[in-house]
Amino acid sequence: MKAEIITIGDEILIGQTVDTNSAWIAQELNLLGIDVVRIVSISDKKDEIFKALNNARKNTDLVLITGGLGPTDDDITKKTLAEYFDTKLVQNKEVLKHVEEFVIKRKAHMNDRNVKQADVPENCSIIKNEIGTAPGMLFNKGDVTYISMPGVPFEMKRMMTQFILPELAKIEKGYYIIHKVILTQGWPESKLAEHLEEWENQIPEEISVAYLPSPGIIKLRLTAKGTNQEHLINLISDQVKKLKILIPRLICGYDNDKLEDIVGMLLNKEKKTLSLAESCTGGNISHLITSIPGSSEYFLGGVVAYSNQIKEAVLFVNNNSIVNYGAVSKQVVEEMAMGVRRLYKSDFSIATSGIAGPGGGTEEKPVGTTWIAVASETMVLSKKYVLGNHRGRNIQMASIIALNMLRKLILGIEL
Amino acid sequence: MKAEIITIGDEILIGQTVDTNSAWIAQELNLLGIDVVRIVSISDKKDEIFKALNNARKNTDLVLITGGLGPTDDDITKKTLAEYFDTKLVQNKEVLKHVEEFVIKRKAHMNDRNVKQADVPENCSIIKNEIGTAPGMLFNKGDVTYISMPGVPFEMKRMMTQFILPELAKIEKGYYIIHKVILTQGWPESKLAEHLEEWENQIPEEISVAYLPSPGIIKLRLTAKGTNQEHLINLISDQVKKLKILIPRLICGYDNDKLEDIVGMLLNKEKKTLSLAESCTGGNISHLITSIPGSSEYFLGGVVAYSNQIKEAVLFVNNNSIVNYGAVSKQVVEEMAMGVRRLYKSDFSIATSGIAGPGGGTEEKPVGTTWIAVASETMVLSKKYVLGNHRGRNIQMASIIALNMLRKLILGIEL
Repeated sequence: MKAEIITIGDEILIGQTVDTNSAWIAQELNLLGIDVVRIVSISDKKDEIFKALNNARKNTDLVLITGGLGPTDDDITKKTLAEYFDTKLVQNKEVLKHVEEFVIKRKAHMNDRNVKQADVPENCSIIKNEIGTAPGMLFNKGDVTYISMPGVPFEMKRMMTQFILPELAKIEKGYYIIHKVILTQGWPESKLAEHLEEWENQIPEEISVAYLPSPGIIKLRLTAKGTNQEHLINLISDQVKKLKILIPRLICGYDNDKLEDIVGMLLNKEKKTLSLAESCTGGNISHLITSIPGSSEYFLGGVVAYSNQIKEAVLFVNNNSIVNYGAVSKQVVEEMAMGVRRLYKSDFSIATSGIAGPGGGTEEKPVGTTWIAVASETMVLSKKYVLGNHRGRNIQMASIIALNMLRKLILGIEL
Repeated sequence: MKAEIITIGDEILIGQTVDTNSAWIAQELNLLGIDVVRIVSISDKKDEIFKALNNARKNTDLVLITGGLGPTDDDITKKTLAEYFDTKLVQNKEVLKHVEEFVIKRKAHMNDRNVKQADVPENCSIIKNEIGTAPGMLFNKGDVTYISMPGVPFEMKRMMTQFILPELAKIEKGYYIIHKVILTQGWPESKLAEHLEEWENQIPEEISVAYLPSPGIIKLRLTAKGTNQEHLINLISDQVKKLKILIPRLICGYDNDKLEDIVGMLLNKEKKTLSLAESCTGGNISHLITSIPGSSEYFLGGVVAYSNQIKEAVLFVNNNSIVNYGAVSKQVVEEMAMGVRRLYKSDFSIATSGIAGPGGGTEEKPVGTTWIAVASETMVLSKKYVLGNHRGRNIQMASIIALNMLRKLILGIEL
């Protein structure tokens, strides 16, 4: 089955909003073996919507549409779909009841705009929006199925997960697309690609390879396509085994693994705790760790020590170390790691100290210079990295490197 | 001038990567008065690229292409463009020299893949990639200009900012699109829309309005289009004045303002300092604050106090308060705010304590229950919020509400 995703909304075309919905939808469809052939963003204009719908039906079986279903006047998707599918809007009693319940639960009052949310095209099937007021709508025309959903990400996701994906899973059989992603940390893309050239030349034709760079991590994606699921799984698994031999120390995870998740699972398994002393990463490692549900089991907390006084007063860093070596130094970052372990009485700790930029660089320590330390009961290890010029990227890279250093410390792998 | 953006790369169609480039490009083109009519993502396949290029030239003057220029075999954009524009790849000496310098500077060795980056279509103009190895390429065919850029966001952005946008600014004159965004915090979309219905009915026809909801913030976007720039600016400015009277306490910023930026500017102006005591937001407020360059001027740091012991041991929270009222309570969050101010000797502080979910909720305090406090030298103010069920969203919303509470405290606006 082939699908196209259409996103409707001026906010995307003027760059106000980044379209995160399409990536999520594509990922979910892929898991069902549905190929997404195109993602298109268009404005809230009738003729653009018509053009996109006409274009989409040419080479797809399924068109997923998000956006333009809000209660305000700039949202025209619903009435445009009614016109496209040659029908009129009628009030749906069930939807109206749901909207009423929804509004009352939030201690608000029904207004005209809420009532209008219950008007739907007469010939569509309604998909319930359990956590919002705009219903989803399903249309069939020719051999193509069109599904319109709200653009609010968590409403769309709930609708997909609860109703749409299970239905699609029933229909879709026979053709499989299997992805396996290998996360690597440590080498740049071209060095990795050169090292893996021979391996790439021997992989079977059912499999394609892509390199996906992101701050701190290069992902290696293997994709197998075909009709024999078991065969494809075996092909992929053989190649992963080869990669484990070729780049054992670079691999730090698989698929949707995140380092904060991997580290969390390791700590949980060993019933160990973690604390953080962040300077240049400014709370980002803490934010990553606590984005994982259940992280309170192993994460005690941390200190963001942006000023030197706090490094001394709260983290027990020696004033002499700061004076003699500077805040961005092996001495200070190691003392920070030991200090926060002592303060929080945790098993492990991480500390960062660097110059994220754009200001603060010197000839000796240019912007991007970053010291990272990890500590356990028995040891403190630290390493210096020279990252780039971009503040946000430096923070992200330092965070990922730090989490990977902790992973290696816990597993006893050389840094 | 009308533009289309084409993003090439399987990673987007399988949902591995979210396309953030297009939003950025669209925003920049808009500022020059260039309308983006469509954003399309397609796979690394020759026929898809041909189809997209053919389709784009029908109703646009400018086609911006990103992606598919990497050094690995899955990237086919360059050779496909050469074929589409009826030419062949030839080695470009200047590009080769740049690639060599680039590789040597990074203490790496030139390999075959690096050398291949210097092969470019014979009939294109080269756009220098100052911070990467894949050059940009410009083609003219009929009345349409095509520009191909790397997909790596910071390389693409540098190329656009340094070379492409200045060139486009020279060409584009006469038609203007002006956006003004008003950030509101406090009311849901439908309540805001109802309150502003009369206002919406009276706005001049040159202006359109859109409501853009995001966690914690509803953005109200006014767009004026026409040929008289000054007239459009005045029209927009009149409407903003009206909104300031209609929703004075809801407006918390404009355009690309971020609360962390607004708060930072206020603190900077008054030469005041800030510290944070985060429980449920887990370091996210700290991360937001430190994402702003120069934040070390006013941000001393913070404590992420995920465990109750740390709330007591580091933040001086009274054990009795935790026992009697629970960690998620007015008492505890106010003691956290006062405690961190004392520890960091800051002028202001923020504290958060809540149940981010998915676990940890009770009947009395369901998931989403969140206490936020802000403190200054003379007062501590706190407020309870009942947010939603989604962990990531709760963390984001609590962070934004907290920053807005601090903004109001600094400005002396009632919470």
